[in-house]
Amino acid sequence: MSQTFAPLPEVAHQHAVFPDGLPLDCGAVVVPLTVAYRTYGTPNADRSNAVLVCHALTGDQYLAEPHPVTGKPGWWESIVGPGKPLDTDRYFLVCANVLGGCMGSTGPRSEMTDAEGRGLGRPWGTDFPNVTIRDMVRAQKRLMEHLGIARWLAVIGGSMGGMQVLEWAATYPDAVLAAAPIACAAHHSAQNIAFHEVGRQAIHGDPDWKGGCYWEDGRIPARGLAVARMVAHITYLSEQALTRKFGRRLRGANSLTFLEDVFEVESYLRYQGSTFVQRFDANSYLTITRAMDFFDLAAEHEGDLSAAFRGTATRFFLASFSSDWLFPTSESRATVRALNAAGARVSFVEIASDKGHDAFLLEEPEFHAALGGFLRGAAEKAGV
Amino acid sequence: MSQTFAPLPEVAHQHAVFPDGLPLDCGAVVVPLTVAYRTYGTPNADRSNAVLVCHALTGDQYLAEPHPVTGKPGWWESIVGPGKPLDTDRYFLVCANVLGGCMGSTGPRSEMTDAEGRGLGRPWGTDFPNVTIRDMVRAQKRLMEHLGIARWLAVIGGSMGGMQVLEWAATYPDAVLAAAPIACAAHHSAQNIAFHEVGRQAIHGDPDWKGGCYWEDGRIPARGLAVARMVAHITYLSEQALTRKFGRRLRGANSLTFLEDVFEVESYLRYQGSTFVQRFDANSYLTITRAMDFFDLAAEHEGDLSAAFRGTATRFFLASFSSDWLFPTSESRATVRALNAAGARVSFVEIASDKGHDAFLLEEPEFHAALGGFLRGAAEKAGV
Repeated sequence: MSQTFAPLPEVAHQHAVFPDGLPLDCGAVVVPLTVAYRTYGTPNADRSNAVLVCHALTGDQYLAEPHPVTGKPGWWESIVGPGKPLDTDRYFLVCANVLGGCMGSTGPRSEMTDAEGRGLGRPWGTDFPNVTIRDMVRAQKRLMEHLGIARWLAVIGGSMGGMQVLEWAATYPDAVLAAAPIACAAHHSAQNIAFHEVGRQAIHGDPDWKGGCYWEDGRIPARGLAVARMVAHITYLSEQALTRKFGRRLRGANSLTFLEDVFEVESYLRYQGSTFVQRFDANSYLTITRAMDFFDLAAEHEGDLSAAFRGTATRFFLASFSSDWLFPTSESRATVRALNAAGARVSFVEIASDKGHDAFLLEEPEFHAALGGFLRGAAEKAGV
Repeated sequence: MSQTFAPLPEVAHQHAVFPDGLPLDCGAVVVPLTVAYRTYGTPNADRSNAVLVCHALTGDQYLAEPHPVTGKPGWWESIVGPGKPLDTDRYFLVCANVLGGCMGSTGPRSEMTDAEGRGLGRPWGTDFPNVTIRDMVRAQKRLMEHLGIARWLAVIGGSMGGMQVLEWAATYPDAVLAAAPIACAAHHSAQNIAFHEVGRQAIHGDPDWKGGCYWEDGRIPARGLAVARMVAHITYLSEQALTRKFGRRLRGANSLTFLEDVFEVESYLRYQGSTFVQRFDANSYLTITRAMDFFDLAAEHEGDLSAAFRGTATRFFLASFSSDWLFPTSESRATVRALNAAGARVSFVEIASDKGHDAFLLEEPEFHAALGGFLRGAAEKAGV
């Protein structure tokens, strides 16, 4: 399964480059800061129809068009397009690759630079500084200014994207008219940290990782990264979804040799792992999982989550999915309680679904209707 | 983390050797069959006080005494001993290392033999035949005959041990007066197969595994096996237990360097992984997880689980734990329904616990009282 290391995919990213760089929570400054992004729809005269969509751990800016590496449909085409809830006839959608990512924004696969931004002729690798969800949001704020957007009509995202939405609303409340954090939490749980740590150890254990300097051999730690993806993928699905999709079916049908056969669920997971490594960078995976693990919005406000939102004028819409055990409904409810305590305007729905955490990416008509309605309400309020 | 390969721990196992070997479900015959075991308590004159305890995936025969490799207490000392539910003053307890294991019973670490039982001067490794839970039970049946036991007063076990209990009751109903399958299921779910597959891929991806021939270098695939243990360990605990034990606490306390710090839950999992590899064989892990994955008692009876128990005189006691998400209560209820349909005598209790699957090994007074009471009832019935 060994694969070739490529410095960056050979695709034409839209970039914004900020030569002065970005100061990070850890104290380091990355110089320059590059933010790769895509836009969908058309901005109106005052750009008041701009909506920021934040992607999840392994997502990217290819929200509603084929992925340039895999050729697969955009990750949220179920919900983005003309006449859809994120209506590209009405809204100007912006989606940026996160800081620390591997699809064009500054991250471990970018060329390492010194404090003056001079290239050092090698990738950052594991020398890339630790970043936080707040650092990711700060990078998006720079992009917002670059694009001449004064206020987002809405900031929307699921999973780690939802963490960014919460951080946006807490850090830049005046820049966010409406916020929709979906299938997420205001902090990462011990269990979620534990699953991430398994993935990191799998990457560290791959001899092709080479302490993070895998570019030196032109190889990637494909096996370790695939195992990390496999374990994460299980957490994205519900037990019911796995049973419905695969049950205990074997790939072959010969019961005489059954003990040599492979369960369909095994074959599926191996496929998920092997395709993932073609498009994702192992050091980005380490960097971004770490950012998620350290996310704790209450801790940024002396342990009081409601203090993060006190006096906010932002309208909130939260949604969870009943079979999501990675970010269960109880986590969304805790955020709703904090928003209520802060006097925020908030609506919340738990969608009945057996698809697990991944439901936020899939065909879920009730969720789409609720999110679309929330966004239309915000647009009417803004006169868009 | 590289470790040295040792053919077998240097400990005095009790062994029973069967020179004619054991025919397996896959069609192979292992010759000879060795079953390593330990006993606790004293047999009565007719050995009618004999209780078989079946161990889980990574368990062994060291039920109620220090482990010879790690020095840690026996894995079920919470429940085994004088005056305890599995009362060694009253019962004669037998616990055997499973077929395919690595603590003295025939398994991948044993010397490979030909069809006549001649040693081939190398371990079986991945050439060890695929075994089933039923094969494990057949090996225990041979031990039972060897020990002169006509009928078990009870067969008891949790997790994979519970699978063996169900198989015992279905395959040898006349040999089992009472059966207590705890925290288990009559088949392995798609999600459980998926988690096992992650562990197997982690082992396969370790270069020290060497296609299963790691003894050739005198090394063991310690990193891959540790990752397998880490992911499995998460499934043994509940989200609540992880939160209560570790929450989001960092190992250090310096918030200035927090991004360089390690969460306590990460440190704990790494420790679990690193200690496990000292006592467990990677090829045994592959063999035994495969046996669990293929366990499907209904499939052995044309898809009808109740047919496995029709007409049985065995008394059943099932227990599940409310926060066990590896073998949830719904699985035990499904088994109870099949037992009811078969007209079996069955009692069932769901224990309220936030400790997850591991609860069956821990201090759970309500569970201990219920199991102890069930066993005393069987003993009175048997005049023991």
